[in-house]
Amino acid sequence: MAARAHALLAVDVVTFALVNRRLRVRVVKIRRGPFAGSWAFPGGLVGAGESLEDVARREVNAAPAVDVHLEQLGTFGDPDRDPSARIVSTAYLALTPDVAAIGASERYLACDWQDALRLPPLAYDHGVMAAAAIERLRGKLGYTSIVRTLLPEEFTLSELQLAYEVILDRALDRRNFRKKLDATGMLVASGKRRRGPHRPAELYRFRERRLVSVDVL
Amino acid sequence: MAARAHALLAVDVVTFALVNRRLRVRVVKIRRGPFAGSWAFPGGLVGAGESLEDVARREVNAAPAVDVHLEQLGTFGDPDRDPSARIVSTAYLALTPDVAAIGASERYLACDWQDALRLPPLAYDHGVMAAAAIERLRGKLGYTSIVRTLLPEEFTLSELQLAYEVILDRALDRRNFRKKLDATGMLVASGKRRRGPHRPAELYRFRERRLVSVDVL
Repeated sequence: MAARAHALLAVDVVTFALVNRRLRVRVVKIRRGPFAGSWAFPGGLVGAGESLEDVARREVNAAPAVDVHLEQLGTFGDPDRDPSARIVSTAYLALTPDVAAIGASERYLACDWQDALRLPPLAYDHGVMAAAAIERLRGKLGYTSIVRTLLPEEFTLSELQLAYEVILDRALDRRNFRKKLDATGMLVASGKRRRGPHRPAELYRFRERRLVSVDVL
Repeated sequence: MAARAHALLAVDVVTFALVNRRLRVRVVKIRRGPFAGSWAFPGGLVGAGESLEDVARREVNAAPAVDVHLEQLGTFGDPDRDPSARIVSTAYLALTPDVAAIGASERYLACDWQDALRLPPLAYDHGVMAAAAIERLRGKLGYTSIVRTLLPEEFTLSELQLAYEVILDRALDRRNFRKKLDATGMLVASGKRRRGPHRPAELYRFRERRLVSVDVL
């Protein structure tokens, strides 16, 4: 590749979802270049007429009806992050309640949802991005209602606690957790109950769709 | 300018300093292009061999001996932010204890330190960057020891309170503030006193140079 005087800009997206009691992250297998065959986060160069969020939404590749939470994580620009070209990357954190709503892409050799806390080595500096994304998510879990963006519309309190435990990778005291939850006032009972093999459990939902500041952890 | 298929990347720096009981920010008057004659934050394109932080340090233009705090603020990429070229900008927040240590630059028509809370209209989306920088600084003032990076090595408690008040643009209750400060444990008495027209006041310094998490506000 010809030498360039200036850096180009890409956007990469770290998309998390809760699947089968695990925090999973969407990774793709790269088709070409020095990292061909390696896993990485999906991404693309920023075109002349696109905003960064446009590119991030395109790379998330979600069905239009799905409400994917998107926020800028940070911009990664070490000169040696990509041996083939001088590309700086702005990483976005994406959170989806529904893994089935995220499409695959034929630009890659493969697309997969892998355990976010036990990732294989990733291409470029995507391992650093992954760590930053998990740190951001865990941080916001403690002081906002962000967990909503990973959950279905209605859920039991046990399901909510499990979401926290899976992301934090540690057990929470049930009684303490419920007391804190109560104090946040962020939940409302839906009036419905979950049917199943166990005693029916009450279903809750979030009072507001927007992120609110709360003290959960 | 010829149309480009992809965006280029710049770094702009929002540098704050405390000068004469005001929070001041370094602005420059642009020499060329659609915003010639307007005030903006200093910045430059990211070269092929530079990290983002390299560019930020260059644009801060501080004397080597001065310890300037630098952190990434965010990346601003609306397609219409610059009418002359498709340039995305990563903004850095820079904090200096010494305004005299920051050099001028002949690339601009003028360099100035203006009142950060009463800025004139700025070029590009730099007004948005200014708001984001002030929000970040005020936020971190409440939960970290970041105020250290704007102060000289030693200071009185009144000077420290004034720094908070100037940045927050509101008065703080003296007794409450001192109680909270005490609880943080982030200060140590230097054993010296400030001489002057008033009763000599004890001088303090920060226990640690690194940013620590504290509950101040």
